[in-house]
Amino acid sequence: MITSRSNAQVKYVRRLLAERRFRHEEGAFVVEGTRWLRELATAGAAPRALYATPAWAAGDEAQTLLAALAVEPALVDEPVMAAMSDTETASGVLAVLPVNPRPLPAEPTLLVILDAINNPGNLGTILRTAAAAGADGVLLGPGSVDPYNPKVVRGSMGAILRLPVWAENWEVIHRLTDGMDVWLAAARDGVAYTAVEWTRPAAILVGSEAQGAGAQAARLATGRVTIPMRDATESLNAAMAAGILLFEAARQRAEKKVSRKDAKSAK
Amino acid sequence: MITSRSNAQVKYVRRLLAERRFRHEEGAFVVEGTRWLRELATAGAAPRALYATPAWAAGDEAQTLLAALAVEPALVDEPVMAAMSDTETASGVLAVLPVNPRPLPAEPTLLVILDAINNPGNLGTILRTAAAAGADGVLLGPGSVDPYNPKVVRGSMGAILRLPVWAENWEVIHRLTDGMDVWLAAARDGVAYTAVEWTRPAAILVGSEAQGAGAQAARLATGRVTIPMRDATESLNAAMAAGILLFEAARQRAEKKVSRKDAKSAK
Repeated sequence: MITSRSNAQVKYVRRLLAERRFRHEEGAFVVEGTRWLRELATAGAAPRALYATPAWAAGDEAQTLLAALAVEPALVDEPVMAAMSDTETASGVLAVLPVNPRPLPAEPTLLVILDAINNPGNLGTILRTAAAAGADGVLLGPGSVDPYNPKVVRGSMGAILRLPVWAENWEVIHRLTDGMDVWLAAARDGVAYTAVEWTRPAAILVGSEAQGAGAQAARLATGRVTIPMRDATESLNAAMAAGILLFEAARQRAEKKVSRKDAKSAK
Repeated sequence: MITSRSNAQVKYVRRLLAERRFRHEEGAFVVEGTRWLRELATAGAAPRALYATPAWAAGDEAQTLLAALAVEPALVDEPVMAAMSDTETASGVLAVLPVNPRPLPAEPTLLVILDAINNPGNLGTILRTAAAAGADGVLLGPGSVDPYNPKVVRGSMGAILRLPVWAENWEVIHRLTDGMDVWLAAARDGVAYTAVEWTRPAAILVGSEAQGAGAQAARLATGRVTIPMRDATESLNAAMAAGILLFEAARQRAEKKVSRKDAKSAK
């Protein structure tokens, strides 16, 4: 059992939680809690390492989950777990996972593109909502917060494992969205979001609340879309705007199937 | 100029920020930043007190705002402002406002009812989104976070001033929603939210993510509404669910005007 906070593995996990560059170098990130272990078991994902307190390992579900994951946990005492955890109340189990994003489908029909979203809570919510709405993936332009930041991972509620999420430069994003309508979410002066034909292959481009989308991002856009609001003094949080657009797309698609072929012939 | 953190006014503001009970006793709360002063000027609301740093007071917009508000600021030095502020980077201006929620319209047609929403960020986002969607008001059942909590106020982006927001017991909420459809947002097994007739007078009832709605809240409900999700492992944040329902109501209402008379005759 690991009982020292200066143990090398403890330090390693803490660096993964704290340092974006270290996560990138190691190709690894950290998830915490029983709920995530269930997600991993469902996804058939194998952790690189797993740390648990004796109390957690003695719990009802622990043996089932550990058997499903085919992994032997390293036991750590409660103070060490508290030191390793990014949360105020450590849950008793923590896993190191490889960064291994799911591939995008060859012909995506609904994507989200984010420009400089740097609030981890917002990004986590967007990932969670995009997965729920049935998006094919999320592309992060330069300047966005790291999707493997522990706050993003936590807020994503598992979506980081299920949804293709890729940080790319604008050139790559341009190539990946070739042939799609790219709708820039704008606070005003765009097409009303309910008037957009969301059954065509579409990407929703959302910029930061403070700055809006940058010039490079805006060049990708084939149109601007606006969520009408009751009065000009109102605005929406970036994650909320993304969610409302995604579910309008989902609503229209539930009525009419989308196809890349239709879109091409319609051009 | 106030230069001591132990000044009685400084302590008073800090207690208002920190203590729900003190805010309630004093009937007062605190807002920070130039943006809020613009909101106050627009709303014609008079602060009980206003504190500013000399640097803020010397700024371009300060004189215009102070004249519009007809208020003389108490000057405080930067360290005192930092001590008074609830934010990491104090903006240089802070106002004490009376708790004076706007009255609900006599016949509301779109309300939000919240049960035990205790995340201040979520409540702030819900208020902001409800105002943007054109809701008539937000009713908070027992056990919700205080809407005058500084994090809620900040997240509301001014909506706390413009939108009727009332914390009430379930009996009062029942009376206030008499004659309205009350739709309980449920993760599953409800009517699809796009199939609901939102042009009738309606209230959207949202419970906490962890617990769902409590028994007393659920008794208010005349139906359950669900946002269909791609798979059963997904779920939505409470604020996101509220926003998606509110904007679906707004979408339907943009197409067809709602009237209480119609609703009564339709029964």
